[in-house]
Amino acid sequence: MSTRIVEVRAGVLKKNDELARELRSRFEQAGTFVVNLVSSPGTGKTALLERTLTDLRARGARVAALVGDLETDNDAKRLARSGAQARQINTHGRCHLEAEMIGEHLAGFALPELDYLFIENVGNLVCPASYDLGEAWRVALLSVTEGEDKPLKYPSMFNSADVAIITKIDLAEPCDFDRVAAHDAIRSVRPAMPIFEVSVKRNVGIDAWLDALAARRTLWQGSRPLATT
Amino acid sequence: MSTRIVEVRAGVLKKNDELARELRSRFEQAGTFVVNLVSSPGTGKTALLERTLTDLRARGARVAALVGDLETDNDAKRLARSGAQARQINTHGRCHLEAEMIGEHLAGFALPELDYLFIENVGNLVCPASYDLGEAWRVALLSVTEGEDKPLKYPSMFNSADVAIITKIDLAEPCDFDRVAAHDAIRSVRPAMPIFEVSVKRNVGIDAWLDALAARRTLWQGSRPLATT
Repeated sequence: MSTRIVEVRAGVLKKNDELARELRSRFEQAGTFVVNLVSSPGTGKTALLERTLTDLRARGARVAALVGDLETDNDAKRLARSGAQARQINTHGRCHLEAEMIGEHLAGFALPELDYLFIENVGNLVCPASYDLGEAWRVALLSVTEGEDKPLKYPSMFNSADVAIITKIDLAEPCDFDRVAAHDAIRSVRPAMPIFEVSVKRNVGIDAWLDALAARRTLWQGSRPLATT
Repeated sequence: MSTRIVEVRAGVLKKNDELARELRSRFEQAGTFVVNLVSSPGTGKTALLERTLTDLRARGARVAALVGDLETDNDAKRLARSGAQARQINTHGRCHLEAEMIGEHLAGFALPELDYLFIENVGNLVCPASYDLGEAWRVALLSVTEGEDKPLKYPSMFNSADVAIITKIDLAEPCDFDRVAAHDAIRSVRPAMPIFEVSVKRNVGIDAWLDALAARRTLWQGSRPLATT
């Protein structure tokens, strides 16, 4: 890349960081715990999210979702089946969500009435790593069909995330998926990363994941001194 | 550094990573949630830890501590006042704890009978960042007397940590400590980092910190599929 392009990119990232900071402050003041889901295309973000929205609603939580794709509103329609408010963000060719897009799509959401807001990022293990969306928790997903070494190939994404979820765990055996190797790969990038294994289809690990969300939200609620004083 | 020295250092780190992985697996199987406390000298790690041990014991938790210093066993004696088992690790000149030292000092601890094991690292904002100790949670402390920009100067430490604690918050005003600038500095290194503010002396923020520990341990307990299957 030329110096000029590098400078432009640095400028975009800086602007994004500032907008993300404003968003984070807004979410903290509203008490909305925001989760940013990142993964390759086809890892099963939407499937897990649909299930998460449905089950959190059954537990009495107030939830909503923003979902990013280059085109189509298929995913927002799918997520809306949970009964939660779900809104599509079309990036029209851009390979990641940016803080500005989040801000533009918050109109109509009553944040103080939301316990959780989930952001499903564009399927991409590279660019979303660099774009803070003001989230409180970044969750990186990896499916057993993708192979165990993805965290080593995409270390920025896994290092910037706070938790990892291995999806489609019911297919581990037919895919010859080596769980130990996958855990080692994740933890060689971020040693103390909590790892969950789920299968939405077979209802494996979902309750542990929902409990973790609730526990992490509790932690976050206790950690907001700037917003609460 | 010469190539030779770089190679030796890489070898040491690799060996440390392997030992840390074994320790982590051992802690996970025992159900012991391990917390690694890192900061500059004088930030108040021992004061917060003594208080944490005392209060967790009062809440019914089973706790112990390992504390690293170049020389003296002053800190272990101080921590033992809490009633918890506390053991000193003297590094004899080394500027950080290593996984091997942790392993050597676990003899006599009945890990399955411990809910929490705290490791107080050597006061140093550089080297401990590179040494995984098998912990489940890395906590970076910063006191208001140190200035707001430490996270920018020591990004590896704050990036590798999972949570930040600002200590001696009762001195914020006399120190002209800018809380917003400190939060921004921490979050420019790791955007979604949870931040707690505490004063052990004035009993500020301690309950929120203890609640966060419990919530994070719950999350960790749900995230151990390799150990529990």
